Amino acid sequence: MNGQDKIGTYKLVAEPFHVDFTGHLTLGVLGNHLLNCAGFHATERGFGMATLNEDNYTWVLSRLAIEMDNMPREYEEFSVQTWVENVYRLFTDRNFAVLDKEGRPIGYARSVWAMINMSTRKPVDLLSMNGGSIVDYICPDKPCPIDKPSRIKVAATEPEVSLTARYSDIDINGHVNSIRYVEHILDLFPIDLYKVYRIRRFEMAYVAESYYGDTLSLYHDDEGGGMHQVEVRKNGAETVCRAKLQFESY
Amino acid sequence: MNGQDKIGTYKLVAEPFHVDFTGHLTLGVLGNHLLNCAGFHATERGFGMATLNEDNYTWVLSRLAIEMDNMPREYEEFSVQTWVENVYRLFTDRNFAVLDKEGRPIGYARSVWAMINMSTRKPVDLLSMNGGSIVDYICPDKPCPIDKPSRIKVAATEPEVSLTARYSDIDINGHVNSIRYVEHILDLFPIDLYKVYRIRRFEMAYVAESYYGDTLSLYHDDEGGGMHQVEVRKNGAETVCRAKLQFESY
Repeated sequence: MNGQDKIGTYKLVAEPFHVDFTGHLTLGVLGNHLLNCAGFHATERGFGMATLNEDNYTWVLSRLAIEMDNMPREYEEFSVQTWVENVYRLFTDRNFAVLDKEGRPIGYARSVWAMINMSTRKPVDLLSMNGGSIVDYICPDKPCPIDKPSRIKVAATEPEVSLTARYSDIDINGHVNSIRYVEHILDLFPIDLYKVYRIRRFEMAYVAESYYGDTLSLYHDDEGGGMHQVEVRKNGAETVCRAKLQFESY
Repeated sequence: MNGQDKIGTYKLVAEPFHVDFTGHLTLGVLGNHLLNCAGFHATERGFGMATLNEDNYTWVLSRLAIEMDNMPREYEEFSVQTWVENVYRLFTDRNFAVLDKEGRPIGYARSVWAMINMSTRKPVDLLSMNGGSIVDYICPDKPCPIDKPSRIKVAATEPEVSLTARYSDIDINGHVNSIRYVEHILDLFPIDLYKVYRIRRFEMAYVAESYYGDTLSLYHDDEGGGMHQVEVRKNGAETVCRAKLQFESY
């Protein structure tokens, strides 16, 4: 298998209900597409969720960092490339490139995944799964010219917004779905901000699951210079996820 | 053009983040797919949004009724067929069939659309558009064996829930998007209900637009026998939309 075979490429289009009021694909929808493409790519290689679940294992998303020069506009075709950069014992790094309809990169993303046993919720040694075959899929040569996910630390002591996890927030695993957090975090910011600024980079660290009925409180630090950090806590205590956003002018 | 040519068929798959905790495609996502397929079909016939917008016209969704025997499950392929049943001076009826992966119908939908002039917001005479060519696309023979949208009248005088329209609710036209209302309405119901009951039929009457920052209040009548009616009002006054839901046991 040469390097090119190790990269999955998936064609997409920015649907009308998937763009925001500026006509650009929303970050939540892009995140959804990235995770789907990760799923397609893993499934094609025998490491998909469906196969894993049969054996009582599942992938857990730990980190996601998306950095975009620009976003596809309504009706524009684009594509997502994805590949495995590294496999460690407990984590694997999966990267993404987003290409415009001419095949030029318009952004990149990095993700970090663990695999857990669904009964014990304990992490699995990736290097021993399927006879260690996951390392055959590593594609070390494809560049991903964005920074790795960084440390996120929020100082705010009072929540800016609190909400309750509802039916539409919950995924097939019974958890608030990873993309809903992105949407709830983006909804912290007034629409006037999005008229002038776009999100250049968005990082998420997923720490714990939350469930139907949980109160999700969003703690927000405005760091200045377009940098923001947000922490989501459930029921006044446990950290669920942390995000770092970098806005820039259009 | 024979009857078959007048029906557009679009293949889809139930993506992991598009199913609810029961593993079935959510009604909001299905509604999104239906509206997209309507858009593809209209575009292929010279009546798409992009073309219309150039001429300062746009389609406005007035009614939507979806009735499903069952919903596609995660990763299942399905398809949507759509066709124009009727064209009147101010409205057109567009129907849908949802087929499972073997091509068997699992549900149907009906929609009613008007076309408006984007400057005056006044309706346009459809029979005079493009030299009346829209009538060439009428497909009268394809059955759509579900009831037409009915009258919805909500008696509740106190809202059950109020929320504020945020960035993620707003579409490219600057309005709260049609599908978000569906999600907000589904979120009225506790998750325990969805463990036992599924939505057999969902009707929406879209009455007026709402905007960023509007307070949306949901008035809810439980009619008994699994029938519910919901009205969304903005800023304590004007009706935005009305919904009728029919639940049934799994």
